[in-house]
Amino acid sequence: MALELVVMGAASATPTSNQYTTSQLLKMREHYFLIDCGEGTQKQLRRSKIKFSRINHIFISHLHGDHFFGLVGLLSSFHLLGRTTPLTVYGPPKLKDLILAQFRASGTFTSYPIHFAVTQHKVPQVLLETDDYTISSFPLKHRIATTGFLFEEKEQARKLNKPVADAYGVPVCDYHWIKDGKDWTSEEGQLVPNKELTFDPPAPLSYAFASDTMYTSDTATYIQGVDLLYHESTFCEDKAKRAQETMHSTAKDAAIVAQEAGATHLLLGHFSARYRDFQQFEEEATEWFDSVWLAKELHSYRLSSKGLEVESLTTSLSDEK
Amino acid sequence: MALELVVMGAASATPTSNQYTTSQLLKMREHYFLIDCGEGTQKQLRRSKIKFSRINHIFISHLHGDHFFGLVGLLSSFHLLGRTTPLTVYGPPKLKDLILAQFRASGTFTSYPIHFAVTQHKVPQVLLETDDYTISSFPLKHRIATTGFLFEEKEQARKLNKPVADAYGVPVCDYHWIKDGKDWTSEEGQLVPNKELTFDPPAPLSYAFASDTMYTSDTATYIQGVDLLYHESTFCEDKAKRAQETMHSTAKDAAIVAQEAGATHLLLGHFSARYRDFQQFEEEATEWFDSVWLAKELHSYRLSSKGLEVESLTTSLSDEK
Repeated sequence: MALELVVMGAASATPTSNQYTTSQLLKMREHYFLIDCGEGTQKQLRRSKIKFSRINHIFISHLHGDHFFGLVGLLSSFHLLGRTTPLTVYGPPKLKDLILAQFRASGTFTSYPIHFAVTQHKVPQVLLETDDYTISSFPLKHRIATTGFLFEEKEQARKLNKPVADAYGVPVCDYHWIKDGKDWTSEEGQLVPNKELTFDPPAPLSYAFASDTMYTSDTATYIQGVDLLYHESTFCEDKAKRAQETMHSTAKDAAIVAQEAGATHLLLGHFSARYRDFQQFEEEATEWFDSVWLAKELHSYRLSSKGLEVESLTTSLSDEK
Repeated sequence: MALELVVMGAASATPTSNQYTTSQLLKMREHYFLIDCGEGTQKQLRRSKIKFSRINHIFISHLHGDHFFGLVGLLSSFHLLGRTTPLTVYGPPKLKDLILAQFRASGTFTSYPIHFAVTQHKVPQVLLETDDYTISSFPLKHRIATTGFLFEEKEQARKLNKPVADAYGVPVCDYHWIKDGKDWTSEEGQLVPNKELTFDPPAPLSYAFASDTMYTSDTATYIQGVDLLYHESTFCEDKAKRAQETMHSTAKDAAIVAQEAGATHLLLGHFSARYRDFQQFEEEATEWFDSVWLAKELHSYRLSSKGLEVESLTTSLSDEK
């Protein structure tokens, strides 16, 4: 099993002619979650060949335009494409009114129900829990109310070693208990330890999104042991003062959070347009944390027990201008 | 002198992976006017190498998302780039609240004043008049309140034929009257007709924007004798029923309006994504009107006394992905 993150945009503040602002699509156990939605996100989703209909949950970190100006357009396109499946949007209190006012102005009643789930930025909060995963928000420290999001897979049932189970004559009706980790006793009273009858399931994976925020030691406490952490690094240490003023992080700040959280991999993004060469971010962070990656538009970051694999999706764009 | 229209997007309803929704930049006597602002317009402006600071007037036809979802992002970028020059946005009554609510939610007070001028869709109305030009709105017939816009250059002063004026010994202090069209009388009482002393100035040009609208014979009455008419043609006659239901036009409808208005050139756009081949629109319209052109993204339409010249701006995009 793997967890896959597709980066739609990684620029901060304003889009440039060839850079998009924040948006990511997370694929977790066949579920698709959209995180933030800067202007043009729907265009990037199409370029990534991601089916709009797969998205049923959208998470908005905060109400700075580079994180949500693309939402109304995406929701509008869902409507124009005749969507009927309900959609849940998780975000700050005012988000609902901002979106619905725009629909009202155009006389639009969407073809599908939109449920707005309101986030708060004071304490961590479970937003959504199923047998497969838990999604929570956690407070970040920015100029306006902002939350990060933590996506955690749940432990799966153990995998049956069918040939061994057959050899012992385990009846099908006992599989359920065995997959839950129980040992098995035959009618003759022979105890077979669970370890012999099953394989370990893939370890559950987790992903944390932390943008926008300045450094705070709290962040690490919310996401202890996370496998992949996306942490904003708008600036490098050469602009630490500017980072402080605007309540953003430097690459070093992000690396310290990753270190304190005991994360496995760190993905940097939300780069300021003041930088031309993003290699500087990687170099700075690598001084404080081992596994540092740069968020690149239309790139996929695939996390599995084998590690993190990066793939560019732009090769499939050759037919576009 | 020439009037130049740069098309940012010409798709209807939703942007696709390589098509943008409605937005146009009109250059008239060195002034830049932005007409409509679909999602991603700021990206297209950058691609067209158009300086944001040249835009001081933005005209929004109506509040369907494909005509204004890019406005808040553009205004936000103006702010982030430190603009201080006032900006005027002309549009329907609710536009101001929709934009300002989004700025308030992010705690933003723009670095420049935005003046919202409210349009109405009942009668034609002069929105802006200078010595150089007049810009008016006129009613269109769509599902919600919608206006078209008419941009008219004013007649310029006549051009002095300096060698002839010198030969007659015309003093500089009389140039002013002569440029205004007056004849000239020498001290000896010789009358020199104005025609001999001046050249005709370039004929003033005009541009009309009509989108979105169904066919109505009123449209032509508002824009009689226009040089270039952009008229939406969301559909062709094969989907005339759909056009009627959605209050849009077919290519034939647009051509009939151009014919009735006595326009010189017709530019078609706002094409539905249901069509793959836009040639069909041109062929249909050409049956009813002579000079038919298709609006293409990042193309410039340059109108002068010599006619209409089209140029693709995408060659300068080769350095982009």
